Amino acid sequence: MNDDFTIGLDLGGTQVRAALVRAGKVLARTAARTDVSGPEEVMRQFRALVAEVSHAAGGAPIRAIGMCAPGPLDTVSGVIDHIPTLPGWEQFPLRDRLSAIFGIPAIVENDGIAAAFGEWQYGAARGLDHTVYVTVSTGIGGGVVVDGRLMHGARGMAGHVGHFTLAAEGPTCSCGRVGCFEAVAAGTAFGKRVRAAANKNPTSFLGRMAEKGIVEGRHAVEGARAGDAACLALIAEEADWLGSGFASLLHLYSPQMLVMGGGVSVAFDLLEPGIRARIRRDAMAPFREVPVVKAKLGDDAGLVGVASLAVLQQRTAGSFHGRTSKT
Amino acid sequence: MNDDFTIGLDLGGTQVRAALVRAGKVLARTAARTDVSGPEEVMRQFRALVAEVSHAAGGAPIRAIGMCAPGPLDTVSGVIDHIPTLPGWEQFPLRDRLSAIFGIPAIVENDGIAAAFGEWQYGAARGLDHTVYVTVSTGIGGGVVVDGRLMHGARGMAGHVGHFTLAAEGPTCSCGRVGCFEAVAAGTAFGKRVRAAANKNPTSFLGRMAEKGIVEGRHAVEGARAGDAACLALIAEEADWLGSGFASLLHLYSPQMLVMGGGVSVAFDLLEPGIRARIRRDAMAPFREVPVVKAKLGDDAGLVGVASLAVLQQRTAGSFHGRTSKT
Repeated sequence: MNDDFTIGLDLGGTQVRAALVRAGKVLARTAARTDVSGPEEVMRQFRALVAEVSHAAGGAPIRAIGMCAPGPLDTVSGVIDHIPTLPGWEQFPLRDRLSAIFGIPAIVENDGIAAAFGEWQYGAARGLDHTVYVTVSTGIGGGVVVDGRLMHGARGMAGHVGHFTLAAEGPTCSCGRVGCFEAVAAGTAFGKRVRAAANKNPTSFLGRMAEKGIVEGRHAVEGARAGDAACLALIAEEADWLGSGFASLLHLYSPQMLVMGGGVSVAFDLLEPGIRARIRRDAMAPFREVPVVKAKLGDDAGLVGVASLAVLQQRTAGSFHGRTSKT
Repeated sequence: MNDDFTIGLDLGGTQVRAALVRAGKVLARTAARTDVSGPEEVMRQFRALVAEVSHAAGGAPIRAIGMCAPGPLDTVSGVIDHIPTLPGWEQFPLRDRLSAIFGIPAIVENDGIAAAFGEWQYGAARGLDHTVYVTVSTGIGGGVVVDGRLMHGARGMAGHVGHFTLAAEGPTCSCGRVGCFEAVAAGTAFGKRVRAAANKNPTSFLGRMAEKGIVEGRHAVEGARAGDAACLALIAEEADWLGSGFASLLHLYSPQMLVMGGGVSVAFDLLEPGIRARIRRDAMAPFREVPVVKAKLGDDAGLVGVASLAVLQQRTAGSFHGRTSKT
């Protein structure tokens, strides 16, 4: 079953992506800028992207298709409630449309849960029964494997690991509430602290960067690698917030391992000592030594995960040869 | 199987309790003050308590025995690491000793997880696939049912729902870290705020109570029921903290219902509007209307839950007639 060809799709606010996947490997991939006109326009984009990657199957049948998107997404009904960053998607029956367009079984999945499945089946958490995957990029999302199963919860919306209050007096989060883990520890929050440091000290490494353009988190990572003290302090602060949130997640889910992915994980080697120190200080004794590791699949985790989930959940005999059965 | 007689035990820092349970009903119960000399002395207490409640089985076989205790407790190994409030329990092989003493299959379970199972099988959350149980008393504990199964996690230690950071600048928690949900919202924190209010205004309802003895949370509940404004404000503050913590738990586990038990839940009717208001403000849209209800089994949730789990997990044909097979 896992040797079947399957398609993974990723619906993002800025990019739509498609991949042909077999046994956890991406055999072909493509992407386009998200058409913001509406869902049918995006469906047209996906038809083109899927036609493109399907060639790599060499005519072999494609068994299933899976799409991941940012949550909260009701994956039981498969109907989009709304997408904050994309107008016109209200009450769009995503799963049924995908299945009708491609003529094969389709699933939709929250992107964090899909990526958690990918890392569990083919990445850093292979063979474990309990793992928490956290992606730290613009926001913080993730998914949970517990007791040997992928956790879904009511309407498939469990595991919004970026949206618990970490700092009751903290900054406002993208979700509207105050002081979420995401609001203090995501790449966006890190970037703000980096820019504040650049403004505060114009003659520093970051201050000089600011003269050339907008300073971002990656500049602090670069500075830290070069040994700049201010950048190292920013990395330490970010690691401290991450460690605090991760310690909470260990208590809540008791994983054997916590896997960190997302854009910020490019600095995992720099962040790791501070994350570990905070967990040692914050976690209850039996949770202190749970390993925190870097994700292995990178940007592919969601695509590989949702494609693999789709083929597992496929129950009918339908197959698909790269042609769309409806338009 | 559920019609079998089974024993539930509860190991607390101040009280040890035993109950004879069948089909979720407590048929007999007894309790004693915990012998703090050490584990073997407590085992002797449990032998006496079990002998007492077993009479109610009328000679019918008792199939299994389950004990719950405060976590973190490694319920996979069944060995106690240590109990902060009880000396001498280091590396005590609790499950094996219970099984040897009573000659029947034994299990040990974290008390929050046991109570969650009790409320799921026989209480407020019957028939649901996803529920979070939170006990708010001296501390905050709980357990989670997700995707139709009781969540255990690595070493059976998942669901420490009182120990995620809610207020990064908050008071120190019993677990040693700063600003846990428990540290700001448990009965202990509520009692402190009530005493502070009493001290601040000696002529108030609470101030007058303070002349008669130590003021506790229950006095504020009493005052609130009588319409005292200061007491109502304290209830509103407590409800706000609870609502903030509960909103986080909805995002983390996506339950269909959150069940609140523990000593503080005697004031559930007073707290509920404030809890609901905070959840409406704090939770992401798809989580805002998840019901929050009062637990149904009260103090019995853990005993009923662990007894029922024990009989479910019992796999051998052994039975027990109320006599201890070893001393």
